[in-house]
Amino acid sequence: MANTPKAPKNFHHTVPEGDERERLVCRDCGFIAYENPRIIAGSVVEHDGKILLCKRAIFPQKGKWTIPAGFLEVGESPDEGAAREAYEEAMAHIEIRDLLAVYSVRHISQVHMMYRATLKSPDFAPGIESQEVGLFAWDDIPWDELAFPSVHWVLGHYREAQGKSGFAPFTNPV
Amino acid sequence: MANTPKAPKNFHHTVPEGDERERLVCRDCGFIAYENPRIIAGSVVEHDGKILLCKRAIFPQKGKWTIPAGFLEVGESPDEGAAREAYEEAMAHIEIRDLLAVYSVRHISQVHMMYRATLKSPDFAPGIESQEVGLFAWDDIPWDELAFPSVHWVLGHYREAQGKSGFAPFTNPV
Repeated sequence: MANTPKAPKNFHHTVPEGDERERLVCRDCGFIAYENPRIIAGSVVEHDGKILLCKRAIFPQKGKWTIPAGFLEVGESPDEGAAREAYEEAMAHIEIRDLLAVYSVRHISQVHMMYRATLKSPDFAPGIESQEVGLFAWDDIPWDELAFPSVHWVLGHYREAQGKSGFAPFTNPV
Repeated sequence: MANTPKAPKNFHHTVPEGDERERLVCRDCGFIAYENPRIIAGSVVEHDGKILLCKRAIFPQKGKWTIPAGFLEVGESPDEGAAREAYEEAMAHIEIRDLLAVYSVRHISQVHMMYRATLKSPDFAPGIESQEVGLFAWDDIPWDELAFPSVHWVLGHYREAQGKSGFAPFTNPV
């Protein structure tokens, strides 16, 4: 997702009237660009005991492997966003099972909502943001080529939650 | 929180290069105001079997009762945001217990992350956004004067979860 804000040329940080925090405000028209943490919706998708991973075709971490995940868009619930991302990145139709983990990645102002899911059918293919898509047995996961720390976390938590249901979602590892 | 965006005078909806969705873009400087769902972080705070509620001093729903909750801010995890809101709205220091519910309120593009919490000390007072703050026994909750549907939901789910721990967070009622 091309969600990295373009550098605003004419904005400055100031506390708008009635607010108590600095916001990014346009010097010309007064538009307030509120910056709030954004939600990343994703899923660990299983099929026949294997896990669906996508090799990224875009920066950052181009060429590295990830689970299907991306920015939640307006009008979506987090589980809907996770399902859309699985389709966009892996052309996969998935069935969401449950909320596996909620991670907070403060320094980039993201909250990750990661679900467990299964493939509705064994069909998948690289979407526009992926170079390759594949199903990996646990021991075949390219551990040294995972794109983000949260991919490591969520795979570990997925493993930990196997055979369980009705549990509190995992959070950031200590 | 004054997080309702000011009407942008000079923005139009267009699909930026490299994107696949319409975004709000400034005609003058090209600034892209990404609109993603925002997180509301809140908590059901219990003390001595009673629940902390705040009478809103601000619009919308001024004069109605709510749990402490508000927009998650940059640099916060959802549980930290919930604790900050309890302090801002009820001058209360709280201890977060666990994630009670995740609601999606699509039409206003919000995801609510609601925690269970307890008061660290029996001290509270109206913050700037509250007219009154009080502890309510279940039967004394002003059910007809609650501010938002999600306040009804979360109180019901709180009741349902009493005595339980390690459960999957509740979601929107069907």
